[in-house]
Amino acid sequence: MTTSPLLISVDRRSRTPVFRQVYETFRRRILRGELRAGEHVPSSRDLARTLGISRLPVLNAYAQLLAEGYFETRRGDGTYVAPSLSRPARLLPRGERRIAAHAAALPPYQRPVWAEMLGPFQIGQPDLHSFPIEIWSRLAARDARRTRVKALQYGDPQGFAPLRELVAQYVRLSRGVRCEASQVLVTSGSQQGLDIAARVLLDPGAEAWIENPGYWLVRHALQAHGCADVPVPVDGEGLDVNAGVRLARKARAAFVAPSHQYPLGVTMSAARRMQLLAWAQREGAWIVEDDYDSEYRYDSRPITALHGLDDHARVIYIGTFSKVMFPSLRLGYLIVPSDLVERFLAVRQAMDLCPSHAVQSTMAEFMREGHFARHVRRMRALYASRRAALAAFVERELSGRVTVMGDPAGMHIALLAPGCDDGAIAAQALREGLLLSPLSASCSGPSPLRGFVLGFGNTPTARMEVAVKRLRKLIDEGSGARQAH
Amino acid sequence: MTTSPLLISVDRRSRTPVFRQVYETFRRRILRGELRAGEHVPSSRDLARTLGISRLPVLNAYAQLLAEGYFETRRGDGTYVAPSLSRPARLLPRGERRIAAHAAALPPYQRPVWAEMLGPFQIGQPDLHSFPIEIWSRLAARDARRTRVKALQYGDPQGFAPLRELVAQYVRLSRGVRCEASQVLVTSGSQQGLDIAARVLLDPGAEAWIENPGYWLVRHALQAHGCADVPVPVDGEGLDVNAGVRLARKARAAFVAPSHQYPLGVTMSAARRMQLLAWAQREGAWIVEDDYDSEYRYDSRPITALHGLDDHARVIYIGTFSKVMFPSLRLGYLIVPSDLVERFLAVRQAMDLCPSHAVQSTMAEFMREGHFARHVRRMRALYASRRAALAAFVERELSGRVTVMGDPAGMHIALLAPGCDDGAIAAQALREGLLLSPLSASCSGPSPLRGFVLGFGNTPTARMEVAVKRLRKLIDEGSGARQAH
Repeated sequence: MTTSPLLISVDRRSRTPVFRQVYETFRRRILRGELRAGEHVPSSRDLARTLGISRLPVLNAYAQLLAEGYFETRRGDGTYVAPSLSRPARLLPRGERRIAAHAAALPPYQRPVWAEMLGPFQIGQPDLHSFPIEIWSRLAARDARRTRVKALQYGDPQGFAPLRELVAQYVRLSRGVRCEASQVLVTSGSQQGLDIAARVLLDPGAEAWIENPGYWLVRHALQAHGCADVPVPVDGEGLDVNAGVRLARKARAAFVAPSHQYPLGVTMSAARRMQLLAWAQREGAWIVEDDYDSEYRYDSRPITALHGLDDHARVIYIGTFSKVMFPSLRLGYLIVPSDLVERFLAVRQAMDLCPSHAVQSTMAEFMREGHFARHVRRMRALYASRRAALAAFVERELSGRVTVMGDPAGMHIALLAPGCDDGAIAAQALREGLLLSPLSASCSGPSPLRGFVLGFGNTPTARMEVAVKRLRKLIDEGSGARQAH
Repeated sequence: MTTSPLLISVDRRSRTPVFRQVYETFRRRILRGELRAGEHVPSSRDLARTLGISRLPVLNAYAQLLAEGYFETRRGDGTYVAPSLSRPARLLPRGERRIAAHAAALPPYQRPVWAEMLGPFQIGQPDLHSFPIEIWSRLAARDARRTRVKALQYGDPQGFAPLRELVAQYVRLSRGVRCEASQVLVTSGSQQGLDIAARVLLDPGAEAWIENPGYWLVRHALQAHGCADVPVPVDGEGLDVNAGVRLARKARAAFVAPSHQYPLGVTMSAARRMQLLAWAQREGAWIVEDDYDSEYRYDSRPITALHGLDDHARVIYIGTFSKVMFPSLRLGYLIVPSDLVERFLAVRQAMDLCPSHAVQSTMAEFMREGHFARHVRRMRALYASRRAALAAFVERELSGRVTVMGDPAGMHIALLAPGCDDGAIAAQALREGLLLSPLSASCSGPSPLRGFVLGFGNTPTARMEVAVKRLRKLIDEGSGARQAH
């Protein structure tokens, strides 16, 4: 690849001959590591034209660079920087290197491992082999071929209008959310939804309830703003609102996943929902409802979103297509109270002007043609059978050792294993190439909760039995080891 | 479209007959506005199957809903919610509605106007009609057809590795930036680059230099974090570093566009660059270099990025493809000092897990096949001729009234018009359907600068003469009006 413009310039008034200027510039840039081994350099004809000079001095410079071994030629493939002479730039960070306290305090970044080789229990993994990739590709390709100039322009910061209409209709019908398309903000996924909500609603230092145990990236989103997260215990009915009131009555917001709590998998009871809404209304607080995998419930009772019970526009609803479509899509949405839409847009614009057009447009087509609804239906049946199978294997292999928590829903199952050193067992599992999520890692502060979160979205039933037996072995060895020392 | 799951459930143990439960649920949801006029309802067969009940009670419920006018049928097209009965949800925001102070303080959000009808002087508008849309669409379509399961998975939060390689090579060759692919962070555009940089580098309340006049969205990005922006004057040599030191020596960062300042179009002189780097090194401050349209210089001197002069890894470099490709692409990049990469990733992950895959992959192809370099070359020639033409028309029509600022570069030209009420003239222009950017609007606080920023990226030369004459008329009438009252 020849990239243009190459930072070569000549000064005709200089006393240094032009060929020398060209030669020196290349040489310096190669030695500084700006031009690398194997990188193409422009043909002498192109360079001469770009610089507006005759070709002769360029040819002379190239000849010298070739002679001295800076350049090489390959037949029919032009001129390259020679392999041996270039070296990467070395920059030594020096001096005081102070960054923002909130950024410094964030937990260490760990490159996520999402690899098939890490086994059957990974979290948040949809069965991508079941995604109708050929339909999606066909729509995306059709959309690409139909691209017109208008679609290249800056788009609506709130999101592509037809997609917002379809999302509003979808959440009204399927989630009982009461909203208009004018309240929908398209995001790049639920994480951006959490981030925007935190930035609009919370001052740095403000307290916000989070679920304990809970989804670790909610904590990160709040910590990145310098908010004080207040871990509130979750029990079989969901977030313990009384405990929240005791811990921080004046908190500015509560971040909850009422439909299917992560990691425990419980559904917030109707009584708790009313209690939470009443607290928010009384204290002028906000509720951020993360409805990340609510498409998937396997008993006969569909659960309405908390949003649908809210009569005072206290709830900000977050949905995502990452789980129900595929993660690399990077599309989600916020449903925002009408009076806050303008502020959400002001913040959104300051952080990221507008969402990318092409993917929104393809998603709208996918929904409009009914593929989305069909895919959700198919996946619901598939995951229901996987969950049932996993629960049965756990019952058979692990009964007495663990208790299954939560409702038949979503793409994970939580096992309580009181007294077991879940962290040590997970560490051992990882050494053996098995990713296992210890329940204690989802807890804020010291917690009595021990156990494991097992993802099953991407786990064929045929692989489960062996996997559960392996887990039993790990648990038993873990207990043995502990008893032994 | 029939969306699934429809939130209908039946309780077989209830004393209410099943048909009545189905009837009541539909009726309630229509009256609450959750089901809307014209929306499809599932066929009785589908609904019975979903609920796991026999079809008869569903047929009875549907018959009643049809009889009472809640449903309508259309031949061959199933059953719909009747047009007259549904009404949108009405939610009254109530109680205290306090949001974050930084979010509340952001300037009012104004839906951007980017419409061809607003005339020839819009800012930041590339000539999208010259974009090789058929090549891009072909690559995107090919990429879509080749999509494999792996590409659906969560991607690298830092960005698609092949694209990072190409970006690193590009900025090394074309911008004199010294970096490795491991320092590249793919963003959704320069605005997200500014946002991430501010979040990693600056505490709320921290001071940061911004250029005055300058790009308004830099100010917003800082204000959204509660940072204190310190407007530092820009003169013919770029940012006045001495003035910055006088105003806020201990500022934590400087946000600059040294290659082609917005709006004045000046290039920061070598002396100022060294001074700025020395200040940053001495005070332990950061420099955020926004190189938003550096591809386009029309004189013979290519300008190296400030980053290339930085020996102490003080500069965070921001590039974008919005101007040189097209805005709805939403792709840009950060070049981050090696020792900060991990912190940038931690913050990036907390705000938005990873960039979308498809667009990165198509962009990498577009670069790899040489289309990017070719497009930049073609656009450079086009914009150069447009700038020359616009400058000539301004010289002919407006000499004596305005002075042209800045270097021949980029896609805009700044005209100084001392003493002219540029805000009033722009307001009058907008009433006449012409978008005109007053220079005073780019200033922080009271400023003596008056004039206009004229975008020409998307303005065919043939339209310029009339447009410049129109501008002259507006200026003359504006001056007349002022003298008259």
